[in-house]
Amino acid sequence: MQIAIDGQRLWSSLMAMAEIGATPNGGSNRLALTQEDAAGRHLLIEWCEEIGCQVRVDGVGNLFIRRPGKRNDLKPVATGSHLDTQPKGGRFDGVLGVLAGLEVLRTLHDHNVVTERPLELIVWTNEEGSRFAPAMVASGTYAGVFAVEETLARQDANGVTFGQALEETGFKGNLPIGEPQLASFFELHIEQGPVLEEEELAIGIVTGVQGMRWFDLTIQGSAAHAGTTPMSYRHDALAAAARLIDRLYTHAAYDTSGDTKVTFGCLEIDTPSRNVIPAKVSLTVDLRHVVEAQLDTLEERLHSELADITNTFGVAVDLERTWASPVVEFDKQCVAALEKAAKCQDIPYRRMMSGAGHDAVYVSRVAPTAMLFIPCRDGISHNEAEYSTPEHCALGAQTLCDALIANANSLEVNA
Amino acid sequence: MQIAIDGQRLWSSLMAMAEIGATPNGGSNRLALTQEDAAGRHLLIEWCEEIGCQVRVDGVGNLFIRRPGKRNDLKPVATGSHLDTQPKGGRFDGVLGVLAGLEVLRTLHDHNVVTERPLELIVWTNEEGSRFAPAMVASGTYAGVFAVEETLARQDANGVTFGQALEETGFKGNLPIGEPQLASFFELHIEQGPVLEEEELAIGIVTGVQGMRWFDLTIQGSAAHAGTTPMSYRHDALAAAARLIDRLYTHAAYDTSGDTKVTFGCLEIDTPSRNVIPAKVSLTVDLRHVVEAQLDTLEERLHSELADITNTFGVAVDLERTWASPVVEFDKQCVAALEKAAKCQDIPYRRMMSGAGHDAVYVSRVAPTAMLFIPCRDGISHNEAEYSTPEHCALGAQTLCDALIANANSLEVNA
Repeated sequence: MQIAIDGQRLWSSLMAMAEIGATPNGGSNRLALTQEDAAGRHLLIEWCEEIGCQVRVDGVGNLFIRRPGKRNDLKPVATGSHLDTQPKGGRFDGVLGVLAGLEVLRTLHDHNVVTERPLELIVWTNEEGSRFAPAMVASGTYAGVFAVEETLARQDANGVTFGQALEETGFKGNLPIGEPQLASFFELHIEQGPVLEEEELAIGIVTGVQGMRWFDLTIQGSAAHAGTTPMSYRHDALAAAARLIDRLYTHAAYDTSGDTKVTFGCLEIDTPSRNVIPAKVSLTVDLRHVVEAQLDTLEERLHSELADITNTFGVAVDLERTWASPVVEFDKQCVAALEKAAKCQDIPYRRMMSGAGHDAVYVSRVAPTAMLFIPCRDGISHNEAEYSTPEHCALGAQTLCDALIANANSLEVNA
Repeated sequence: MQIAIDGQRLWSSLMAMAEIGATPNGGSNRLALTQEDAAGRHLLIEWCEEIGCQVRVDGVGNLFIRRPGKRNDLKPVATGSHLDTQPKGGRFDGVLGVLAGLEVLRTLHDHNVVTERPLELIVWTNEEGSRFAPAMVASGTYAGVFAVEETLARQDANGVTFGQALEETGFKGNLPIGEPQLASFFELHIEQGPVLEEEELAIGIVTGVQGMRWFDLTIQGSAAHAGTTPMSYRHDALAAAARLIDRLYTHAAYDTSGDTKVTFGCLEIDTPSRNVIPAKVSLTVDLRHVVEAQLDTLEERLHSELADITNTFGVAVDLERTWASPVVEFDKQCVAALEKAAKCQDIPYRRMMSGAGHDAVYVSRVAPTAMLFIPCRDGISHNEAEYSTPEHCALGAQTLCDALIANANSLEVNA
């Protein structure tokens, strides 16, 4: 038996939420724990209390909104995402996952359905990391990755601490960090990439999150006159960087599965001049792969290409790994639950790995977790132009609804 | 019969001149038509008048310092270069060519030798182009490449015109532009490149100046998320630039003659971010070759590589040629005169093309011209660390002396 969510109501909720902190070009600006973010949370709470849900807040402002089940001694099945946005964010990133959860609760309320387990709609604080770095800090705190005191002491650009912002907005709660424990967690999100749209699929069943490694690289050659220095006497730092970029890019592109990703986002020449051979180039390297061992291999490839340009161009290289995020594999049963829900509705879907980080990554450390994606136009996100169709939002919410109900009625899962 | 120049005296003159506008790290700062430049000129004039030479100044401040010959109705044989420097210039760039000419005049004076033709030591104004753009503007005016009024109206960074600076320093002369016409012109200069030093040669006989073409290039791709965008969906402007740079660099390096030169001196990513695929990259391209037809071929190669990256990366390119300087071939007889002088002394030398522009380039349009180079340490120039040994300076001056005397005693040349 499938209970149908109300796609029009979901869309109206999304559009109503977007009015809070609305930006001139159709996006939203609700930086974490500002008055706008607080207003968004209050609107959500108002909607949830209308249908009899109970709101609790933990010590880092995470909202846990409970719809009781028949067996409230059991761990809840949970869903959610975040309501905070980038400074010029869109209407869907994070918000969709929260409001689709609300739509599920409303649908159950409409149909007077009470699940065996309680359901929990969660709003994680400061997912974006735009106001307080790093991103996903509150779900990370919930999962024990960050110490509470450390999180509360984090400062924004004006020196306001996370703790002060919680007090000012009234979202410093009493629920102990790490509570409630969850039977499972499902997060619906826009893809923030082009794959589903290009492949004309409505749903991505997210089986995990790719691993990522960040590097800062400096290449040191020698400055010399472009007119008087024959090629064989040069130590051209930019030409060496170009060789490296081209080699690694070609290597990644050769993997047509799309699982290998290589990006050089920043490149700067020290003291550039049109007729001087570049002496020093600084650049960033971003390596990603869905398999940890393959990420190791990719990093080895980076090292071997660096050795090659060192020899070929007579340059010195300095490579520093500044960050690494390991591959995350989501829970197989949770993935299967989402896949079953998509299949039952005949929704065209594919399995995929997430290319971006999400709260679900940290939650997956302490609870069985999976995610689902819907397409977003041109893969654009973190941008006022971010857009997903009402139809895709509804299909995502329906799949989420079906999986949540199935899991909440199962007493087997992680009781 | 060879008359020996005095290498020690030449070196002392170089060091004395370097004291005018001396910089903390051993260089000189005599920007064109400043008080320092004027002081340098006055020192030279004092030295020349001591040995009976006559000074004339043309309408753009070029100095013509004559040592009469037996046949003053004939065109003079000339040598010279410039005394102005970069803001943090060295002690040799330009200065050597002027003071080696002075040393030749002094040597003739010491030996009471009077040549058939008069000799003319020339100081060209504002060769560097650091104060008034473009470089070599006054030799260009002498040669008819630039209109006098245009040159006089050129402004420095403070809005002072070339004409005002001439008046203020007292170097606005009466000699008509283009006078005197020259039987031949020889310019001694430091190489400003690494070839002679690397090949352990004391003299470069310069047969011409390579051609050069400058381009501004923009590559337009699309910004996208480094984590969520598979390689096959990317339009990475930096990766496209890297392919272009690597291909053209490799092509140039493949020509082991050293005649092909390709430099990308500037490269800038618009709005760089470590985890965003670069959407737009702007760069400069500098192509050089000693053969004009080969320079055409090199430019065609640039176009074909651009077509290739356009197809491969799905980017748009915008290429603008901002400047072109054709290949210059110096006068065969003048080149032969210098080569004969080097050979007679058993100086290890090679023929070579100049990679940089010099006053001789413009002079070669109106008079038979050639240049000779001596090595400079590590090829460094336009830098306080610029250095040539006293021995190399002396060998250069001796070669210049021999060629000047031979030409000044020949009545055949371009009479």
